[in-house]
Amino acid sequence: MNHFAPVALPHASRLVNHGPTVLVTSAHGGRRNVMAAAWSMPVEFTPPRIAVVIDKKTFTRELAMAAGGFGICLPSLALVDLTYAVGSTSGRDEEKFARYGIEARPGPVLGVPVIEAGCAAWLECRLIREPHTEDAYDTCFAEVVAAAADTRVFSGGHWNFREDNAGLQTIHHLGGGHFVRAAGSVRAKPLQDARI
Amino acid sequence: MNHFAPVALPHASRLVNHGPTVLVTSAHGGRRNVMAAAWSMPVEFTPPRIAVVIDKKTFTRELAMAAGGFGICLPSLALVDLTYAVGSTSGRDEEKFARYGIEARPGPVLGVPVIEAGCAAWLECRLIREPHTEDAYDTCFAEVVAAAADTRVFSGGHWNFREDNAGLQTIHHLGGGHFVRAAGSVRAKPLQDARI
Repeated sequence: MNHFAPVALPHASRLVNHGPTVLVTSAHGGRRNVMAAAWSMPVEFTPPRIAVVIDKKTFTRELAMAAGGFGICLPSLALVDLTYAVGSTSGRDEEKFARYGIEARPGPVLGVPVIEAGCAAWLECRLIREPHTEDAYDTCFAEVVAAAADTRVFSGGHWNFREDNAGLQTIHHLGGGHFVRAAGSVRAKPLQDARI
Repeated sequence: MNHFAPVALPHASRLVNHGPTVLVTSAHGGRRNVMAAAWSMPVEFTPPRIAVVIDKKTFTRELAMAAGGFGICLPSLALVDLTYAVGSTSGRDEEKFARYGIEARPGPVLGVPVIEAGCAAWLECRLIREPHTEDAYDTCFAEVVAAAADTRVFSGGHWNFREDNAGLQTIHHLGGGHFVRAAGSVRAKPLQDARI
């Protein structure tokens, strides 16, 4: 059963607020690709905008620029091995969806590939062309035009990471194939006075 | 006892690779400030460069622009309440270091305030002026010129998040004062074939 439901655009930035490692998907001219990216962040709530670093040498960069957009999918703990694998090979050499048996479908607005099986959420992103920052920092800005999440872990505009849905926790790359998970929820308490 | 030791610059981007929420520190003309920021990411390994979103209305933005740099400090679980507190008030109204009893000292290269008590790591960052992205996206690029980390949780160029150092885990803001921690380390295994 598929538990994905649309996320209202004013809540879209919350999907990536906590710094998860993501899968960047792309498609153009009959070819498609998926790569892992640890370097992304929101830059604006409304309209929801993000920045993601996509190296200019990658096939993803070529497809995303040609298509004018890309997908951001948030792999859950279930896809930790796959995430590292698609981050270590090039889609120029092989069609990674086929090789790794990744199910994807076209997103509702841009038609970029979105992955739901094993993912906690996805965002369809329309590129905002910024040639200087794309060139100098490989930093691509984009506006989120559609988003969805697994309601077992994100609902009402909020993440709900718990022990009983640990398999859906987002993953965060430390480097070299080592990841941590979005675990151990804690809520800040009001703080009025000097304390440290 | 202070457990901080310098981090070699080629390893500096790993400090923020996993998307922690950070404290942005700044000082200029006898005034200083600290704010929380969930939106930052590395953009380059060598030289180590980062991007961080600092709203143009903030006192931090004013001080960082005037000084030409800022500090990035990684609060650990011990500072979750403080992190949320300094993210909810303005340094124009009160000197937050004094109000909250935050110990800071000038960093070795730029002299920006660096916080070690309760933090897992810090980075001194020299601003790279990019007026367009600063204005359009509040996104500030910077080069890391010095870094240090608590050796109990980062050593040999790698994070080591374990149960016995859980108090030093970095924190990741979900929104509204809810955080997750960098917990539950997992290592990706090689993946050769279709699997999902």
